[in-house]
Amino acid sequence: MERTYIKDLKNHIGEEVTVKGWVDIRRDHGKLIFLDLRDMTGKVQMVALPNNAEAHTAATTARSEWVIGVRGMVNTRPPKMVKEGLNGDLEIEMLDVKVLGKAQELPFELGAELNLDTYLDNLPLTLREEKARAVFKVQAVIIHAFRNFLVGEGFTEFQAPKLIGEDAEGGANSFNVEYFGHTAHLAQSPQLYKQIMVGVFERVFSTGNVYRAEKHSTTRHLNEYTSLDIEMGFIKDHTDVMNMENRILAYITKELKEKCAAEFALFGATIPEVPEKIPAMKLREAQEIIKKETGEDCTKEPDLEPAHERFLCEYAKREFDSDFIFITHFPITKRPFYTHEDETDPGYAKGGDLLFRGIEITTLAQRIHDYDTLVQSMKNKGLDPEKFRFYLQAFKYGMPPHGGLGLGLERLTTKFLGLENVKQATLFPRDLNRIDMLLSN
Amino acid sequence: MERTYIKDLKNHIGEEVTVKGWVDIRRDHGKLIFLDLRDMTGKVQMVALPNNAEAHTAATTARSEWVIGVRGMVNTRPPKMVKEGLNGDLEIEMLDVKVLGKAQELPFELGAELNLDTYLDNLPLTLREEKARAVFKVQAVIIHAFRNFLVGEGFTEFQAPKLIGEDAEGGANSFNVEYFGHTAHLAQSPQLYKQIMVGVFERVFSTGNVYRAEKHSTTRHLNEYTSLDIEMGFIKDHTDVMNMENRILAYITKELKEKCAAEFALFGATIPEVPEKIPAMKLREAQEIIKKETGEDCTKEPDLEPAHERFLCEYAKREFDSDFIFITHFPITKRPFYTHEDETDPGYAKGGDLLFRGIEITTLAQRIHDYDTLVQSMKNKGLDPEKFRFYLQAFKYGMPPHGGLGLGLERLTTKFLGLENVKQATLFPRDLNRIDMLLSN
Repeated sequence: MERTYIKDLKNHIGEEVTVKGWVDIRRDHGKLIFLDLRDMTGKVQMVALPNNAEAHTAATTARSEWVIGVRGMVNTRPPKMVKEGLNGDLEIEMLDVKVLGKAQELPFELGAELNLDTYLDNLPLTLREEKARAVFKVQAVIIHAFRNFLVGEGFTEFQAPKLIGEDAEGGANSFNVEYFGHTAHLAQSPQLYKQIMVGVFERVFSTGNVYRAEKHSTTRHLNEYTSLDIEMGFIKDHTDVMNMENRILAYITKELKEKCAAEFALFGATIPEVPEKIPAMKLREAQEIIKKETGEDCTKEPDLEPAHERFLCEYAKREFDSDFIFITHFPITKRPFYTHEDETDPGYAKGGDLLFRGIEITTLAQRIHDYDTLVQSMKNKGLDPEKFRFYLQAFKYGMPPHGGLGLGLERLTTKFLGLENVKQATLFPRDLNRIDMLLSN
Repeated sequence: MERTYIKDLKNHIGEEVTVKGWVDIRRDHGKLIFLDLRDMTGKVQMVALPNNAEAHTAATTARSEWVIGVRGMVNTRPPKMVKEGLNGDLEIEMLDVKVLGKAQELPFELGAELNLDTYLDNLPLTLREEKARAVFKVQAVIIHAFRNFLVGEGFTEFQAPKLIGEDAEGGANSFNVEYFGHTAHLAQSPQLYKQIMVGVFERVFSTGNVYRAEKHSTTRHLNEYTSLDIEMGFIKDHTDVMNMENRILAYITKELKEKCAAEFALFGATIPEVPEKIPAMKLREAQEIIKKETGEDCTKEPDLEPAHERFLCEYAKREFDSDFIFITHFPITKRPFYTHEDETDPGYAKGGDLLFRGIEITTLAQRIHDYDTLVQSMKNKGLDPEKFRFYLQAFKYGMPPHGGLGLGLERLTTKFLGLENVKQATLFPRDLNRIDMLLSN
């Protein structure tokens, strides 16, 4: 018999169906054996009655995470037995049980509170838990929405190489790869390639892994993460990029509201409202506010401390009712070589960071598009233009004013759902001490 | 004035517009200066008349690949001047020209015949040529169609790590990465992770870079390429995966017909018809046909030579009117450890390759889902199960029958468009001697 997905059972009341999935849990009530079955669409309670000896025996044998196929009758539950939630009013009477895959005894119950290391050591199992699945469903919806929105805006997707020679962000934090007798690096961003691609398609995006060989071990850093990148030509200035990000986020949250309400509810998390226009202020303005409101003088600093990012997000929520705030015009000396200086505010960058719920989730900017200016900027940063001659061709042969942004998928997921640690929003996080399992010393 | 895209000019005849883009070419006809302007949506001819001194001077100065913004009047051309193709009936009279980005003199004309090394050395420029842009537009449509189809079929996208410890395909062909005092590897496929994810979401897909440290230098191999991967649970056998691939390809070609007819025309390439059911035969059957038709006896071989793949594709075209053919049941000893043996045909794999226009574009199979069988299979291949203990958890804790496939995006693009070399379908190809520029010795 063709398989029925659990979400569709409500259309089959009083009918025989075949369902397949994992035993979520078994409960024995005297002679009645209850199995909760889980498939990719939902969960349902099943019961084995003692008058069906074969099904009853099979149900008694089955344990958590066994994979089974069940032919059964879809019944409604008596009113007083109806439970909250999906299929709480249904029950399948098992008529025939087929074991598709056995499981050993679990080292812990799925859904038990685990410390992070135990959770990570056991990901092939722990990812099956309801909340973990919710996180990565949300993540899949975010990345799909990101791409769909951009395709609708005339952006062309491109595949950025990860194996590179010189890195735009400098060599200190890049991983080395043995490449046929040479040393290559893992890209920290698709920056140079997305700029090149503006010359080809004007508007481009790329989604893929990027690498940071940082020895950080915090709740917000990863050594391998997924970067959502766009770059767009013929902009007026960096505010065109800010407006595009504003619209990207509005689209993503619209999609999340349509597709992930249950997942957000599971975390007690709210899908943020994206303002028509996300508030923006210059770093110096933000620093003055911090000084005035907290007494802390950070007006001489070239960047924001984590505590200041959190403060500014609280401020934006309070003053502008916004979960998002752009902080622009960081000192150009602290920004990468390709950042465009603001002609009307010399010394400061045309671009900035987007803060969301206490943390920076995006860096964006207009880029230098004039060849001579770009070469000079490299020299000012102590970089050798000769090493970037491949990239520099794009600028030698005509580039429009352009800019772009990078958005960390895992960080965004973390903040949307209010998770504590970005590793909870990363399927298989790599860190200083771990690639899947702890690295042995 | 707001920018008008070139594709929309036909709706603005007799109006003043602002267009922006790259000078494709300048032609001087006495006092008339013609510029072809190119933006991401098309090309249009513009003319500068001598009576507008300022615009005329600007047009005379502009050269190929200069980026300009032009305010101009959209005119229809006199009937005898109408040319074939997009906007062949239009011309913009330049009223005002603004230079947005200058370009140095090009090392060669865009569109000139170049040898591959010159083409690759100058990618930031050569990718701007019409045919190159067509290739990567087609590629973007393929990958977008792939994802959209699968989302519609209930597949969940996941982000596969590329930095790994042990590789499913064995260590010989993997690149080494210095990872905080350890040696990590670049994944040759997301195989182990997509199987793990079947335990989480049943049906998953992933798109991303994979790495082969092969010293090949052929027209079909790359050291970094984009793999389109799916894995699906609760299959009957490998034919469910074959049927899914059949439908994926039908959807991709439908999208290509809708969106890329002009790009295919540029190459004189035909978008293939995907049969309702792609023909399939076992390797032994294929070898008998090769023997009978060509006299060459390869019936003892465990695999197909490139020449035999080409022959079988010709055969499928002739006999079944299909550009595609599945060759199944390779000897299990020659397949990776996770491949499922056919119980009804011992010694042979439940799966095979998809050939398309002379070349293998996919390997697919049912996988082993029973823990003990999988561990034994590893041992038979000389692999240490202890090194795969992270992955093996998925099988310890209940896995359904499942299978999947990997499809090389660049190879598929190459074959769709009839390109000679897979490097023409790779934006920034890496090989033995090249990361962007040739590696110095």
